[in-house]
Amino acid sequence: MPVTTTNERTATPRYLEDFKVGDVTQTGEFTMTRDMVLSFAEQYDPQPMHLDEASARDTLFGRLVGSGWQTLAVTMRLLVDARLLGGTPIVGAEFKDMRFHAPMCPGDTLRASAEVIAIRPSKSRPDRGFMDMKVTTKNSAGTTLVTQSWSLVVPSRSAVSL
Amino acid sequence: MPVTTTNERTATPRYLEDFKVGDVTQTGEFTMTRDMVLSFAEQYDPQPMHLDEASARDTLFGRLVGSGWQTLAVTMRLLVDARLLGGTPIVGAEFKDMRFHAPMCPGDTLRASAEVIAIRPSKSRPDRGFMDMKVTTKNSAGTTLVTQSWSLVVPSRSAVSL
Repeated sequence: MPVTTTNERTATPRYLEDFKVGDVTQTGEFTMTRDMVLSFAEQYDPQPMHLDEASARDTLFGRLVGSGWQTLAVTMRLLVDARLLGGTPIVGAEFKDMRFHAPMCPGDTLRASAEVIAIRPSKSRPDRGFMDMKVTTKNSAGTTLVTQSWSLVVPSRSAVSL
Repeated sequence: MPVTTTNERTATPRYLEDFKVGDVTQTGEFTMTRDMVLSFAEQYDPQPMHLDEASARDTLFGRLVGSGWQTLAVTMRLLVDARLLGGTPIVGAEFKDMRFHAPMCPGDTLRASAEVIAIRPSKSRPDRGFMDMKVTTKNSAGTTLVTQSWSLVVPSRSAVSL
């Protein structure tokens, strides 16, 4: 299974025909500072388990944990930085089956991987298609935090000559 | 179908037994400023269609649009502020079937609604269960931006007496 890391990718656009089922992209890392975790929570997910240690102790988690939405947002950042589609923008048609296996905590260093599961030409638009990927986010201990399935809109090479 | 708005809800905890299929929560509103849209994009989704008008013109969208991940994060904020579960934290077990129907743009005012689709006691843990909800996010023109399905972990009343 070919695994590509960030520094091998350029900003050259990649098309549907450039991928095959089984291709895996591994991202670099992103460390969650306490400030980032609190700042995201204050803006988007102001709940006791995300805002301060004292309030978090009385929750299901028993300690301060980051918002799952921030884990998802950082996963996007990791895959953008890894140039998942080279110079082609990453546009989601659908995100599915997001499962939260373990919480992200301040200080965690996250990495993600994305594996091509299926490639489907569009029935109505010959200039594009869909690429289904399994995306996994782990912390540096190797614990899986989130798994999800992405369906991306990817241009086909025929789009170039249109 | 009973529709509850924010100001009727208190911080009193709500339990699995307090909900029924068909219950709908309507949130308040949240206006996306250009600064918020750009700041989120710079941190979490630095792609041409999210970073500036000139680069966005050459993308699939043809104009500056917000990150779909930010629309999802703001939807969470709206439902936290609406006290979806009263004083009980909103904890996701799974988020599914997120479909992006239309992009969010700077200046858009977002609202969300959440409808109870199913209530399932946990087989292994009598102190909790799962509540499945259909969550819809619209702009002020009434255009649906995102639909998704949530499976939340909700404590049952038996948890109180344990």
